[in-house]
Amino acid sequence: MDGALVYFARYCIMGDGCAMEGISHEAASLAAHWKLNKLTLIYDDNHNTIDGPTSLAFSEDISMRFQALGWNTITVDDIHENIWSFKSALLRAQMETGRPTFIRVKTLIGKLSQKEGTSRAHHGVFDDDDLKKMRGKVNWSEREPFHVIPMIYREMQMQAEEGEIQEMKWYSTLAYYENKYPQEALEFKILLYGGLPPGWESSLPRWSATDPVDATRGYSEKCLNQVARVIPGLVGGSADLAGSNKTYLHEYGDFLPETRWGRNIRYGVREHAMAGISNGIVLHGSGLIPFAATFLIFSDYMKNSIRLSALSHAGVVYILTHDSIGLGEDGPTHQPVEQLCGLRAVPRLLVFRPGDGNETAGAYRVAVATRDGPSVIALSRQKLAANLEGTSAEDVARGGYIVSDNSGQETPELILIGTGSELCLCDASARELRKEGRLVRVVSLVCWRLFDRQPKGYRDQVLPPDVRKRVSVEAGSPVGWREYVGTEGVVIGVEEFGTSGAYLDTFEKYGFTEENITRIARSLFSE
Amino acid sequence: MDGALVYFARYCIMGDGCAMEGISHEAASLAAHWKLNKLTLIYDDNHNTIDGPTSLAFSEDISMRFQALGWNTITVDDIHENIWSFKSALLRAQMETGRPTFIRVKTLIGKLSQKEGTSRAHHGVFDDDDLKKMRGKVNWSEREPFHVIPMIYREMQMQAEEGEIQEMKWYSTLAYYENKYPQEALEFKILLYGGLPPGWESSLPRWSATDPVDATRGYSEKCLNQVARVIPGLVGGSADLAGSNKTYLHEYGDFLPETRWGRNIRYGVREHAMAGISNGIVLHGSGLIPFAATFLIFSDYMKNSIRLSALSHAGVVYILTHDSIGLGEDGPTHQPVEQLCGLRAVPRLLVFRPGDGNETAGAYRVAVATRDGPSVIALSRQKLAANLEGTSAEDVARGGYIVSDNSGQETPELILIGTGSELCLCDASARELRKEGRLVRVVSLVCWRLFDRQPKGYRDQVLPPDVRKRVSVEAGSPVGWREYVGTEGVVIGVEEFGTSGAYLDTFEKYGFTEENITRIARSLFSE
Repeated sequence: MDGALVYFARYCIMGDGCAMEGISHEAASLAAHWKLNKLTLIYDDNHNTIDGPTSLAFSEDISMRFQALGWNTITVDDIHENIWSFKSALLRAQMETGRPTFIRVKTLIGKLSQKEGTSRAHHGVFDDDDLKKMRGKVNWSEREPFHVIPMIYREMQMQAEEGEIQEMKWYSTLAYYENKYPQEALEFKILLYGGLPPGWESSLPRWSATDPVDATRGYSEKCLNQVARVIPGLVGGSADLAGSNKTYLHEYGDFLPETRWGRNIRYGVREHAMAGISNGIVLHGSGLIPFAATFLIFSDYMKNSIRLSALSHAGVVYILTHDSIGLGEDGPTHQPVEQLCGLRAVPRLLVFRPGDGNETAGAYRVAVATRDGPSVIALSRQKLAANLEGTSAEDVARGGYIVSDNSGQETPELILIGTGSELCLCDASARELRKEGRLVRVVSLVCWRLFDRQPKGYRDQVLPPDVRKRVSVEAGSPVGWREYVGTEGVVIGVEEFGTSGAYLDTFEKYGFTEENITRIARSLFSE
Repeated sequence: MDGALVYFARYCIMGDGCAMEGISHEAASLAAHWKLNKLTLIYDDNHNTIDGPTSLAFSEDISMRFQALGWNTITVDDIHENIWSFKSALLRAQMETGRPTFIRVKTLIGKLSQKEGTSRAHHGVFDDDDLKKMRGKVNWSEREPFHVIPMIYREMQMQAEEGEIQEMKWYSTLAYYENKYPQEALEFKILLYGGLPPGWESSLPRWSATDPVDATRGYSEKCLNQVARVIPGLVGGSADLAGSNKTYLHEYGDFLPETRWGRNIRYGVREHAMAGISNGIVLHGSGLIPFAATFLIFSDYMKNSIRLSALSHAGVVYILTHDSIGLGEDGPTHQPVEQLCGLRAVPRLLVFRPGDGNETAGAYRVAVATRDGPSVIALSRQKLAANLEGTSAEDVARGGYIVSDNSGQETPELILIGTGSELCLCDASARELRKEGRLVRVVSLVCWRLFDRQPKGYRDQVLPPDVRKRVSVEAGSPVGWREYVGTEGVVIGVEEFGTSGAYLDTFEKYGFTEENITRIARSLFSE
C-alpha cells in the first residue's frame, strides 16, 4: 500500500457493551463483506459493563467471531506494560490490504485506582483522594490536571505542520486539475464539499391528472433515478427490498469490493446498520447524500438511528414504502399503524406522506435539499385512484395547502384533510358532497412539521379557525390528528392492528372508502 | 441425557435474512452463554434473499460465527439426496448436554421448479404449469394438492397416541404430588398454568403524603420486589442497567447456567433480544410473568419487539426508567422526548407514567394482572417533589382521575392535567392558583388508553367538556395531548431534543416549573 492511503485510515473504538448490541454485528458483517481494509476497530476488552463483570452476560470468543465475519484480527495482551505492542498492531492494521482489522486490546479498567478492574470504574466517580494516589503512583503528582508533556505537544505540533504541508500540496494538485478539467473538477468538488447543482430540482418529473396512475413508490422510483442523474453524490440502498421499495438506481451498479464506483448499497436484511451507516456517510462531511430504504414498518428496527440522524443534523433521506394497511396480503406484522405518528414526534425529522406523483416530487425537492436534517418519505405499495389536479410539488414545502375548494371567495362549510393514498379518497368524497350543494375544501397535510412552521396567517388561511367541521383521513394511528381537526372534528384513523387481505378489502374493513368518509362528513351537518 | 429431556427439545428455524438481523446475534450469544443445550437452531442455507443471491450482502463463515459464540455446530450438505443425514444431525443435537446446537442445512430453494436456486423462488409465485412439472418429476402427479401418504399419517397418529400415554402418566404423577405436597403443588400449578394468587395485589406497598419522597424508579423497586415475593413466576431482568433501573430482585439470585433457579436475567447490552426473549417466555404459555427493563430512550432499540408483544397478546411488563429530560446529565442521547408518544400509539399497549408511590403501585396492579397484553411503566430517575394526597393505586385502573379540586359541587374554571414527575408540579401550581381564588382541578392522566376505554360519562365527569381552560404538563413530545386539552387549551411539552445539565436546570430551561405553569394558566383567564 502506498503512503497516501494511511491518511485515510479510519479508527473505531468499541467497548464490551457495543460488542453485545445487534447493530455492531450487522455493521461488522458488512465491513468485512465490503473488504473495508482501511477500517480498524479497537476493542477495549476491559471485562466490565455497568452491572458488573462481563462474565454475567458475555462469553463469546470475540476474535473468532470477527474472523468468522472475515476480519483480520490481532490481540494486544500487554498494553499496560508495553505500549509498543499496540503501536505495532496499528501498523499491521495499516498494512492490511483486503480486510478490515479488529484489534482486541486487553485492558485493566481504572488501573491503579481503588476501583481497578471493577465495574465501579466504568461509571463510578473517582474521588479526589483516590485520584491523588493514582497520580502519585505514576509520578504525576506535581502536574496540573490537564498537563501535556512538552515532548508530546511538540510531536503533535510537528504532525500538524506536516499535515499543513500535505494539505497545501493537495490544493495545488486540485488547482492544476481544475485548470485542466474544469467540468470534472466541478463535479469532484461537489462530491467532496457538498452543495447541489443549480436548478437540479427542475429535472424532477411532473405529472398531470390525466397521466396513468401508479403507486407513490412508483413515482418515487422515477424521482430518485432522476435525482441520481443530476446529483452525482446521491448514493444509497435498501435492506434487501430494493425491488419492493423501487429504490434501485438503474444506471449506477452495485457498491461491492470489485465495483467501488457502484452507487447502490446492498445492505442485506440489516435495517439498523443501514441507518447507522447512512448517518456515517452524511456526517463524514463530503457531498454524498445517502438514502436508506425499507418498508415503513421496519423503521422500528432502526428507530434509534433515525433519531440520531435528527439529533446529529444528518440529512439522510429515508424512503419507507408499504406505508399503511393498504399494503394488503402480508398482514399485521408488515402493516404500519403507529409508525407515522412515532416518526412525526421525533424532533426536527421531516415526515412526508405524498398523495400523488407531484407531491412525491415535491417531497424529494425538500428532502434532498435539506442537508442539515433527515427526512422520511412514506410511500404506498398500492396504486392510487388518481393523480389529482390541485396538487403541487412546490406547495409540499409548506407542509399543508389547499388542493381543491368550491367555496370561491366564501369560507367552506367543511374541510377534508388527507395525506398519502387517502388524499384521493378525500377528493372523491368532496366531489360527492359538492354535488349535494356543500362548500367543501380538501387540504393535503403532507408534512405536519413544515406546516407547523408556517406563519399563523398562512395556517389560518388553509385551516380557518371558524370552520369547525373537519374530517381527517389517514390510514394510520389517529394520535396527533386532533391538533388539525379540532375538538369538534372527526379523525378517521386505524386504532387496531391491521389484517391480511386484498388492499381494497382491508381499506373497506377499516373505513377507508369514499362512501364512509362521505357518510361521516354528512353526519357533521346533522349535529 | 435421559429420554424425558428429548420431549423438551426446542427447535428454531432460521433463514438467511434472520442470520443478518442484529437480534439473531444478540439472542444467539445469550443462548450459548446460558448453555441452552435443549435448543436446536436449524439454518436453511439456501443462498437467496429477496433481492438476489446472498453473495450480494453476506460472506460470513456462519458455522464459525456460531462456534465463536459457544455453540455446537453441525453441517448437513446432502439433505436433498439423503434425508437421514438431517435426522442424524437432529439426534446428535439432542445428545448435546452443554451447548445449544446450530445445524447448517444446505438446501436448494425451489428445487425442480423453473425458479430453482434463485431468489424468485423466495417470494415469487409458482405458476400452475411449473407446479405440475415439479409434481411429475417426483411421481406425485396423481395426488391431491394436500395429500398425506397413509404411512406418514399412521406414524404421526402413533406419535400422538404415545403422547397421550405420556400425558396421562404426567397427570397421575402430578395428582400423587398434589396429594402429598398440596402447598407446593399449588405453587407449581400456578407456575405451570398461570394465574395469580388471590389477593396478591394487597401486598403492594402504600405511601402517605408524609412519607419520605423518592424517584418513581425507587417506588418501583419496592413494588417489584414485593410482587416477586407473592408471585413465584415473576422473572426478568435488565439490559445491563439493573442498578439504574432498580429492577433487581434482591432475594432471588441470577439466572445463569449454574443457577437455573435464579429469577434475575442478565441480558447484557441487548435490548432487542431482551424484548424478544420476554415475548418467548410469556408466549410459552406457562405461568411465568416476564419483566424487561432499560432506560425509556432505549425502548427504541426494541420497538419492534414491543409491538410484537401487543400484536401477540403477550403480557410482558416493560419497566422503562429515566423517562424524561429530567434525567439530567447524560444529555440528549439519553433523554427521551418522543418515546412516550410513539409507545402510546402502539395498539393495545398500556403505557403508564405514574406520578408518585401509590400510582406506581397502581401501575403494577394493572400491568401484572394484564396477562393478554403488554404494559410499559415509565419511571423517573429524579426524586419527586412530593407524594400527593389525592393519588390512588386503585384509580390508576381508570387511566385518568381527579387528584384534587377546590370547586366542590361547582364546575372548576381550569383543569391542570399531568403525568409522572410533572403531576407534582401541577398540584403545586393548582395550590398557588387557588390562593388567587381560582377553582382549579388537577387530573392525573396516568394511562391514556385505559382512560379512553372508560364510559363517556366518566370521562366527561373527569374532563367536563364545558371547561375549556385546560393545561397539560408532560416533559415529552406534545403530540397527542390536544385530544385531552382541546383546541383552546395549552399543551406544555418538549418539542426539541433535551440538553445536558442538572435535572432542575433542564426542567427550568424547558418550562417545567411551578412558576411557568402558573403563569400560563393565569394567561388563560386574561384571554
